Amino acid sequence: MVVTDPDVLAGYRQDRASDPAAGVALALVRPTTTEQVATVLQWAHRHRVPVVPRGAGTGLSGGATAQHGALLLGTERMREITVDPVTRTAVVQPGLLNAEVKRAVAERGLWYPPDPSSFEICSIGGNAATNAGGLCCVKYGVTTDYVLGMEVVLADGTVARLGGPRLKDAAGLSLTKLFVGSEGTLGIITELTLRLLPAQPPQSTVVATFSTLPTATAAILAITGALRPSMLEFMDGVAINAVEDELRMGLDRDAAGLLVARSDAPGEHAGYEADLMLDACERAGATEAFRTDDPDEGEAFCAARRYAIPAVERKGPLLLEDVGVPLPRLGDLVTGIAAIADRRRVLVSVIAHAGDGNTHPLIVHDPNDPDETARAHQAFGEIMDLAIGLGGTITGEHGVGRLKKAWLPDQVGPEVMDLTRRIKDALDPNGILNPGAVL
Amino acid sequence: MVVTDPDVLAGYRQDRASDPAAGVALALVRPTTTEQVATVLQWAHRHRVPVVPRGAGTGLSGGATAQHGALLLGTERMREITVDPVTRTAVVQPGLLNAEVKRAVAERGLWYPPDPSSFEICSIGGNAATNAGGLCCVKYGVTTDYVLGMEVVLADGTVARLGGPRLKDAAGLSLTKLFVGSEGTLGIITELTLRLLPAQPPQSTVVATFSTLPTATAAILAITGALRPSMLEFMDGVAINAVEDELRMGLDRDAAGLLVARSDAPGEHAGYEADLMLDACERAGATEAFRTDDPDEGEAFCAARRYAIPAVERKGPLLLEDVGVPLPRLGDLVTGIAAIADRRRVLVSVIAHAGDGNTHPLIVHDPNDPDETARAHQAFGEIMDLAIGLGGTITGEHGVGRLKKAWLPDQVGPEVMDLTRRIKDALDPNGILNPGAVL
Repeated sequence: MVVTDPDVLAGYRQDRASDPAAGVALALVRPTTTEQVATVLQWAHRHRVPVVPRGAGTGLSGGATAQHGALLLGTERMREITVDPVTRTAVVQPGLLNAEVKRAVAERGLWYPPDPSSFEICSIGGNAATNAGGLCCVKYGVTTDYVLGMEVVLADGTVARLGGPRLKDAAGLSLTKLFVGSEGTLGIITELTLRLLPAQPPQSTVVATFSTLPTATAAILAITGALRPSMLEFMDGVAINAVEDELRMGLDRDAAGLLVARSDAPGEHAGYEADLMLDACERAGATEAFRTDDPDEGEAFCAARRYAIPAVERKGPLLLEDVGVPLPRLGDLVTGIAAIADRRRVLVSVIAHAGDGNTHPLIVHDPNDPDETARAHQAFGEIMDLAIGLGGTITGEHGVGRLKKAWLPDQVGPEVMDLTRRIKDALDPNGILNPGAVL
Repeated sequence: MVVTDPDVLAGYRQDRASDPAAGVALALVRPTTTEQVATVLQWAHRHRVPVVPRGAGTGLSGGATAQHGALLLGTERMREITVDPVTRTAVVQPGLLNAEVKRAVAERGLWYPPDPSSFEICSIGGNAATNAGGLCCVKYGVTTDYVLGMEVVLADGTVARLGGPRLKDAAGLSLTKLFVGSEGTLGIITELTLRLLPAQPPQSTVVATFSTLPTATAAILAITGALRPSMLEFMDGVAINAVEDELRMGLDRDAAGLLVARSDAPGEHAGYEADLMLDACERAGATEAFRTDDPDEGEAFCAARRYAIPAVERKGPLLLEDVGVPLPRLGDLVTGIAAIADRRRVLVSVIAHAGDGNTHPLIVHDPNDPDETARAHQAFGEIMDLAIGLGGTITGEHGVGRLKKAWLPDQVGPEVMDLTRRIKDALDPNGILNPGAVL
C-alpha cells in the first residue's frame, strides 16, 4: 500500500495543471478501503503529517499537486460500485472513472449525467471533490446535484457518513453539499451515493458557424431564452482550426465561432427544439447551420468539441482558464478576452460551455520563452480579473486548487474568506488536509 | 420596527408546530433591509441576546418558536423581488411568500418549481432556511437545487454575499448550500438568488384508488421504476374521507389509498407517460383508475391532496411527521406506521410525496385527554425510530426545528453531530442564533 520509490513518486508530483511549484511527497499510499484511509489519517493526525488526496490526477487547477513532506493519498484502487435500479442510486468508491460509473449504470438502463470533457480519464471522487461540471450541465446540473450522500474520513481519521439514498432529507446541516467541492481540504471522500436518472433519450443536434463573435453570442442568448438545451457548446476560430488540423472533419476554418447545440426532449420534440435552435442561429446571422438526428454524426461534433483542449495543446503548453459569467455578460467576456490577448501578445483560444456562461480560455505559450511566459501569466490573471469584474467566477467547474487561490479573495470578498477559514479551522485544526489548496 | 406589545408578541410565540414549550420573546423586530438586520445582529452580538428568525410562521417543526429573553426577527416586511428573464434568475427578499415568487416569475413566462403544500402562506426565506420540498420535487428537486446565491447576516452582524447568478461556480467552499437548510442556526438570510425554469408545460393527471396499501405501494414503485413523474402523491383512507367530508368531490370512501400522478412531458408525451402510469396502477390492482388531460380536473385532485393536512386536522390537533425512507422501504414504513397506530391506539393518517419516499403521518389526538396525548407522543417518537431503522430520515422537508431534535443524533450518529457542533461553534461562537433549534 505504501510506495516510496522516487521514480513512482515523480509520476505523481503534478496533476494536469503541471504546477511548477510541485514538491516531492514523503510517500504515496493507495488504500482500497475506508478503514485503510482512516488508519492513514489517524497516523497523519498523530504525527502532524500533511495529506494530499489524489484521484486520477486530471485536475486542472493543481488541487492534487504533491507537497514536500506530505503524504499523497491516491484513491485509484478504490473501485467498488453497486447500482440500485429501484431507488435509482449507485454507491461508488472514489477511484472509479466517471466513464466507468456511466457504463455500469447504463447496463441497468440508467444514466449518471455529469460529463466533464475528461470523463474517460477523470475519477468520480475527484469530480465530487471539485464539484465538476461538463457539457450536459446546462440542463442537468453539476456533480453536487447528483450526490445524495457520502462516507468521508475527517482530519483526525474519524469516519462520518453523510446523507444517504433518500431523495429528500432535511435532517441537520447540509454537510454532504459542503463536502462536495471542498477539494480535499475538509476530509477525504471514500464513498459516494449518487442519484441516477433514466437513460437519456436520443438527441437531435444543431451545428452552426458564425463569422463574428457577437453573432455567435447573440445566438446563444436567443437559444437559452427560448428553451433548455441538453448541450450548448462553443469553440472559437483557433479551436476550430486546431481540431480540424487533427480530425479533418471539414469544419469551416474561416469561422469565428462554432456552436454545437442539442435537445433530448422526448420523441419528435427533440427535433422540434432543434429546429427552434436552428432558427435562432440563422436569425442571429449564422453563415451555415444544420440539424442532424443521426446519433453518430451528432456525437462526432460533440467529440470534436471535447477534443478542443488537447488539439489546442498541440500548439504549445496551455494555461487553462475556467472563468464563468452571468449569461448576458458572455459577449463582454469573450471580447474582453480577445483584447487581453492582443495587449499581452499571446494566443488565447476560447471554448465554452456556452449555455451556462462557463468558458475555458486556453492561453498558449512557449515555456522556453521567458518573456512570452511572463505575458501569458499576466493574461491568465487579467482574464480572472475581467470575469470578477463582470460579476463572474474564476472557476466554473475545475476548482480553485493552488493555481487560482490568489484570485479567490478578489471574487468572494473578505467576509467569505473569513467564513471559509473558520470552517476549515473547525474541521481541520492542524491544517493537514491538502494544505495550500483553496486557502 | 421594534414591537414589545404583549398582545402582538403573543401572536408570534409559536409557528404551526404549536410547540408547548414556546417562550415569550423580549421583542419583535421587523426590518426591511439587510442593513437593518445587520444592525439588529450587531446589537444582539454585543449584548449576547439570542435571536430567533421567523418567516411567515408556517414551520411544522418549531424552528421559529419564541424563546424567553430572545429577540424575534420577522422577515415579513422584506418583500422586494427582481426577475431577470435572460439569466433566468430572480433576486428576492426572504419575506415574500412562495406563491408571490411563483406569480412574479410567471408574469415573465418563468417557473420557480419548489411547491410546499403551504405555498400560498409560507415564505421563500423560510423555504430556504428549511430546504423545503413539495409535490414537484420528485422530478424537479428541492429548494437547495434552486438557490444559486444569497446574502446572509452572520452572528456578529457581518454581511456575507455567497454565490450569485452563475449556473456553475466552483470557487471556494459550497457555503450557499451549507446555509440552505441551516434553520437560522448559522445566519439570517436576507436575500436569495433563485434559479428559474421555463414555464411548466401542461400536465396529464392520473388518479387511482386501491383497496389495500400493498397494491398502492406496488404501483408507486412500478411508476418510479419506469419514468420520472412530475408529481406522485398518496393519501390513505383516513385522509380520503377527511378530504371528502370537506370537499364533496366524490372520492371513494372505501379505498385504502389514492394516488395522484402527473406527467409534464412535452406535447402528447404527457399523455403517453400518463398512460404508462395508468397501466402501472391497473396492473398493481387499482380498483379504479383514470387519466385526465383537463387542467382544472387535474388541479382539483392536486388541491385535494394539498388539502389533506387541514382536512385531517379537523378531526383534532395533529402531531405532524415528515419521515422519509429509500423508496423500496416505503411499504415497510406504511405498514409499520399502521402497527404503531394500533399498538398506541391513536388515529394516524398517512399522506405522502410517494415518489420520493417522503411521508407525512398525521397523528390525531385530543389534547384534553392526557392519556391519549401521551400515547400520541409515544407514537410520534416510534414512527421516527421506525424510519431511522429503515435507513430513512426523521424529516424530509420540514426541518428538525425543536420538535425533532431529540431524534437527530439517532439518525445521523455521533460523528455527524460532532461535525455539526464544530461548524455551529465556528460560525456562532456565542450561540445566539436560533438557540435550541436543531442542536
